[in-house]
This record gives sequence, structure tokens and C-alpha cells, in this order.
Amino acid sequence: MKAEIIAVGTELLLGDILNTNAQFLSQELAAMGITVLHQHVVGDNAGRLKELVEMAKSRSELLIFSGGLGPTADDLTKETVAACYHDTLRFDEEEWAKITGFFARMGRETTPNNRKQAMVPARGRKLPNPNGTAPGVWFEDEGRIAILLPGPPNELRPLWKNAAAPMLAAWQNCVLHSVVLRVCGPGESEVEAKVGHLFEHENPTAAIYAKTGEVIIRITARAATDAEAEAACRDYAKNFYELLGDAVYDEDVEGMEETLVRILRQKGLAITTAESCTGGLVSQRITGVPGASEVFRFGFVTYANEAKQRLLGVEGRVLEKYGAVSSQTAAAMAFGALDAAGADLALALTGIAGPGGGTPQKPVGLVYIAAAHGDTVWVKKLMLAGRSRETVRLRASQQALDMARRLALGLLIPGARMFLRGENAEL
Amino acid sequence: MKAEIIAVGTELLLGDILNTNAQFLSQELAAMGITVLHQHVVGDNAGRLKELVEMAKSRSELLIFSGGLGPTADDLTKETVAACYHDTLRFDEEEWAKITGFFARMGRETTPNNRKQAMVPARGRKLPNPNGTAPGVWFEDEGRIAILLPGPPNELRPLWKNAAAPMLAAWQNCVLHSVVLRVCGPGESEVEAKVGHLFEHENPTAAIYAKTGEVIIRITARAATDAEAEAACRDYAKNFYELLGDAVYDEDVEGMEETLVRILRQKGLAITTAESCTGGLVSQRITGVPGASEVFRFGFVTYANEAKQRLLGVEGRVLEKYGAVSSQTAAAMAFGALDAAGADLALALTGIAGPGGGTPQKPVGLVYIAAAHGDTVWVKKLMLAGRSRETVRLRASQQALDMARRLALGLLIPGARMFLRGENAEL
Repeated sequence: MKAEIIAVGTELLLGDILNTNAQFLSQELAAMGITVLHQHVVGDNAGRLKELVEMAKSRSELLIFSGGLGPTADDLTKETVAACYHDTLRFDEEEWAKITGFFARMGRETTPNNRKQAMVPARGRKLPNPNGTAPGVWFEDEGRIAILLPGPPNELRPLWKNAAAPMLAAWQNCVLHSVVLRVCGPGESEVEAKVGHLFEHENPTAAIYAKTGEVIIRITARAATDAEAEAACRDYAKNFYELLGDAVYDEDVEGMEETLVRILRQKGLAITTAESCTGGLVSQRITGVPGASEVFRFGFVTYANEAKQRLLGVEGRVLEKYGAVSSQTAAAMAFGALDAAGADLALALTGIAGPGGGTPQKPVGLVYIAAAHGDTVWVKKLMLAGRSRETVRLRASQQALDMARRLALGLLIPGARMFLRGENAEL
Repeated sequence: MKAEIIAVGTELLLGDILNTNAQFLSQELAAMGITVLHQHVVGDNAGRLKELVEMAKSRSELLIFSGGLGPTADDLTKETVAACYHDTLRFDEEEWAKITGFFARMGRETTPNNRKQAMVPARGRKLPNPNGTAPGVWFEDEGRIAILLPGPPNELRPLWKNAAAPMLAAWQNCVLHSVVLRVCGPGESEVEAKVGHLFEHENPTAAIYAKTGEVIIRITARAATDAEAEAACRDYAKNFYELLGDAVYDEDVEGMEETLVRILRQKGLAITTAESCTGGLVSQRITGVPGASEVFRFGFVTYANEAKQRLLGVEGRVLEKYGAVSSQTAAAMAFGALDAAGADLALALTGIAGPGGGTPQKPVGLVYIAAAHGDTVWVKKLMLAGRSRETVRLRASQQALDMARRLALGLLIPGARMFLRGENAEL
């Protein structure tokens, strides 16, 4: 099946908005085994839209639209596409009741224009939108389908997942189920090398996406029932677990911080942070997770040596002898934070984020991370040369969170060395 | 002049990559007064690309391409577009020398495929690319222009700014100059209401972009010389300064943290942070600016009450009587951080970021921010109801940085009240 994605909105052509919907829909269609031939953006202009729809419809079985379903005169997608698919629109009392109810709750009055949003296909179907006033629309004409979705991503994404995608799967006589694996540790090319052959598969499909410091693998299966599709995903996921092991840190989460907070809550462990080069990024990520207050109480941003001494009790002679950016200082910071916060786990980071401050011995991108628990500390050295300040900090924070996860779960920490309190933590 | 933007790359159609180039180029063209009719994404397929280029060329004077200039067999943009613009390609010794030099520095060998990247138009022009191996390309055919740019944004953006945009301006017999104003305080609709009429202007053009917690205004002038264009921008910018006053916090910076760090460095002031609901976001933003270590030494993430007491000396009776989320606690945190860090300025934030933890009296989105200096503290109350945890935190951090900026510059802090040390900071 061939598809095209059409975004409607002059604001996209002016660059006011980034077209994240196109990427989202492309990923979703790829997961369904549907080939996207083109993405388009066109302005709020009926003539140009009609011309584009006629052309796209002639070569592709499926067109997916985003935007142009609002109440203003500019919003003309529904009428234009209806005509191209030989359908008409009718006023829908049920949608109108939703719209007036929504406005009443907001303490606002509807205008005559809002009635446009209650227009639905006479022959096609409507897709209820619980997050906004514009319903989605499904047109069908001799085996060719057009799906119209509202532009705001917080409306488009749930409407796609809960209504449009299941309807499309049903039209293909199947249901879909996805599982998203999160992988931290090996880089994208290493993951590709290990599991690349698993991405050449029809059903389930599997796709890989790189993010800073991690890799996302999405597995999607089509089957007659959700249970069968999920079972097929689980079955296929085993291949990845076998080859990647505990580098797969979780499934269906937003990021490593969510996983870490969940593990710490389950185990009743409290964590604290002592940050130099990351300047609060690690604590900010942990506290970005709802419910983090159960596991995080204290954080220290010790940018200056004086702060490392006063807040964490790092000894002046350690700083003098080994320098602020050293495995010894990282270990001392972690033990200091552990004691000052009375926590079960402590993460400490010290490094040179750049662009300035590097030396031949200690170049930009050198970061030491320590993870302490009781009388033991694990220390890891990262060399992130050639990367921006932001990337150095983000990668360091990701590695730190992963070290805490591994420590909390009793897993090995690859590339780290363990030291005891009082030992010289020399890497 | 009408334009279309064409991105070439199957990875975009698979959703592997977000098409940020389209937004960037749309903003740039809008600033030049050029109307973008369409944005397209097409795969690495010569037939579909040719069909699209012929159609777009027939209706638009300017086509801008991103991607498809690499060395692999997939990369066919240059050959295909050359044919459509009645041009051919020739091997360029100078570009080839650059490519072999680049590979030599990376310790790698060139392959025969790399010779493709040294092909430049026989009749058109090449646009040197200092950040990669693929030069940009300019084709011209009977007053119709095609500009081909490499796909990676870190190559495309400088190549556009330094080569393509000036060449395009020269072709229009002018040069361009832009000034970007950053505005914090009033929301987008308030800015629109005050200065909306200034966006309806031909030369300079002015456009507004909303970001969380701030608004960006971009002014672009076309003139015969850069000096004239800059003078026209400055002159037009005066209108915005007159209407928006010191809500315009800076020009041509990446964000409020950059402005704040520059001001603090100029004035020789040190700042510290005491964060509860933002969990390190404010310190992370400050330390994200190169050179922040001159002005930032200590930061405190005091998520639990115990942390507020132990690290900042907030009195237990203040926490008990007024609660952790109160103007009194915010003020006490700020004074405590000021003293503990020996800093000149302190920012403290306490609030309910959500989604849980709200009560009828203290709902999700309630945040108190205190900015202290010497024996005075300014306290501001924010009500950010209905927003996500992430947005509440981001907006609070932005307001906090702006309060510090205003305090450092001796400006009024709108919506804040001043208290003296020892006074009950009740809002």
C-alpha cells in the first residue's frame, strides 16, 4: 500500500511551526508496513490543495492529512478533500453537542463558524476527538482512503493511535500492536551491527531511531487480534534481548529517568546527585519524573572547588593532587553527597564540557562519573571529544542514570571500576 | 517571487529524521519577502524526483533542495536537477582536493563514489561548504533558480547563511541583514496586540515566533549594502523597543541564560540557586552557557523539606506555618542560598509542578520565585494551571532568570513584591 502525507497550513510554509506530525505519521505508517511516497505541505488555499489531492489520489491508495480542521475561513481541508473523494458533509448533532459543551466549560460562547467543525462525511466516517473540538474524518472512494486529522500534535497523536490506526488496520483485516525497546550503552552503529538483520522483516516490522545517548527500537506486529499481535511482538523482542542483553533498559517509557525512578521506588532507595560539569542536568532529569520526591530529596551543584569542599567535604589535598576533573574527585564527591544527603545511592559528575577549559592531558569531553552505595563506588571515564557542550552534558547525564540503574539492580556496570571508601580511586 | 522547498531522502519518509531544514528555510525565505508555496519530501528515486522538479519549476521561480548530495548511489539530486535546468556536471579539481584532504585528515581513504561529490555545474555555480565534503549547487535556467544544499543541518545552515542567501540577495540586487529580538514577560497574544501592526511590512520584514516563556521577533532588511540594511533593521527595531520596553531582554542570543551570564560577568556578580520544583533546571540552564563558572559556583536542589532546612537553614516553623510552597519559604530559601554560597544574587523556586500534589488552595502550576540580593528579596507568584509538568518547570525557570537579569540591571520586576530580611514575605 502506498501513502502520502499532506500537512495543510500557511503557518508551516512561513516556518512558524515545525512539522513534527509528518515524522510521527511516517514512523507510524512504516511500522504498519505502508510505504510513504511523499510528504507535502500546502497553504490554506483551496485551489492548490485540490490540485495536490487529485494528483496524490491518482497515484497513492492512502492520503493522510494534518491540519485545516479549525473553525476559521482558512480551514478548508474537509470541504476540499470531500469533493475529491466524491463525498459531501452533513451537520452532526452529536459533535455539535460536544462543541457547545466544551465552550460552556471554558466559559466561552460558540460562534457560527464553530458549526463548521460539527460537519462530518455523509458517506465516510468521523473519528471522535476527545482532546479538541474538531473530529477527525475518514473518506473512502473506490478503495482509496483519505484520513483527516487535526493539526495540534496533542490532538493528532491520540486520535491517530486510538481511532485512525485501528480503523486502518481493520480495513486491512488486522490489528496492530507495538513495543518500544530502549537501549543504552552501545552506539547506533554497534546496535546496527548486532541486530541490523532484524530490521529486514515484514511482520513484525522493526525500526531503529537514534537519540543522544540511546537508541530506540520499535517493533510492530499485525495480526487478527491484539493478543496475537502482542504475542508476536514479544516473541520478536526476544531476539533483541538475546543479542543486546541488559543494554535494553526498558520498554515503552519516555526515557532512562522514568525507568530509574520506578526502580528506586520499587526498591525503596533514595538517590542524591553531586554535579559539576552537568550543572544540575541529572537532578533536573530525575525530578522531571512525577513522583520523584519519593526517591530524591537533596541535590548538590558544586561547580567551584570551594563548593565541592564545603558541601561535599572533598578534601583540598585530593583536589590539589588529582585536580577537580579526576576519578578521585568524582569518587570523593559521590561519597560526600551520600553522607550529606543520607541517601542510599549517589551520582557524582565532574568533567570538561567545553568549548573552553580543555588541556592536552584533560581535553574537552573528558568526564568522570561516580556512583556510590554504602562503602563502594563505581567510577567510569568518558571521552566525548568533538561534541558540543550540550551533547557532552546530555551523554554524561545519560551514562550517570544508567550507572544508577545498574547499581540499583545489582547489574554489572560495563567500563566502570569499583573502589572501596578510603581507597585511591585511580583510573 | 514564489519558491518551493524540496527535501530529498528516504530516511525522511520513514520518519527516521525530523525535517527541521524545511522550517529553517521557510523562515529564511519569509524574512527575504519570498513566498513559499509548497514544501515537499521525496525519496531517493530519480523518476519521482524528476516529476516533482518539472512540476515545481513550471510554477515557481525558486526551488531549494536539501539532501541527496552524498557519495552513495542513492544520492541523485544533483544529476536529476541539472537535467531539469538544462545544465550538466563537470569534475572540479579544487573540490576534489578538498575532499581528499578531508579524508586524509580523518585517516580514511576516498572511494570512487566520492568523486561524485566533486561534480559541480558546468554552467551554474558551486557553493563552497566548509563543514562537509559536498559543495552546494546553484542552477539557473531562463530566470528560474535551483539551489541544492546538503542535508545535515550543521552544514545546510551555515552554507545557506554564508553563501546561498547572499547570492540570492545579490541576484535580487540587494544584501540582507537580520536582527533577532528576544522578548520575555508578555505572552505572544499580548505582544501581537501591542506590535502586531509592525509585522505587516515589506522591507524590513518582521516575524514573530513563540517559544515556551518567551517570544522571538526577527527583523530582516534588504538594501544595497550591509550597512544600509543593518541601519534599516536598527531603525525598525526602535518601534519594538518603544512599545515593548525592557521586556526586550536582548538581541541575537540563544536564550535568557546567555544574557544573564553576560550581564553577571560584566558586573562581576556571583549567582546561586535554590531549587525545589525545578529540581536543577535553573542551574543547568545557567551552567549551559560557556564561561558560567565565572559567575556560578554553588547550586542547591532542595526537593525535600529536610534539604531546605539543612542546606539553606529554612526554619522549621516557616515550613510548618506557611508550607513548603509559599512566598515565605521561597524568600527564606533565597536568603539561605545567598549566605550558604556567599553569592551576590540568589534565585529560589518552590511550587507544584504536577501532575499530582495539587490542592484547592495550592493547585498544580502554583510557583513562588524569590530573587535575593543583600538584605532584600523580590518574590513573584506564578499560576501556571493547565500546563504540563515540563512546561510549568520551563516557564518558572524562564521567569526566574528574568528576575535575576532585572535585579542585576536595577530594573523593576513586574508582578513581584519586595521584602526585607526578617520581614514576613507574605504575598
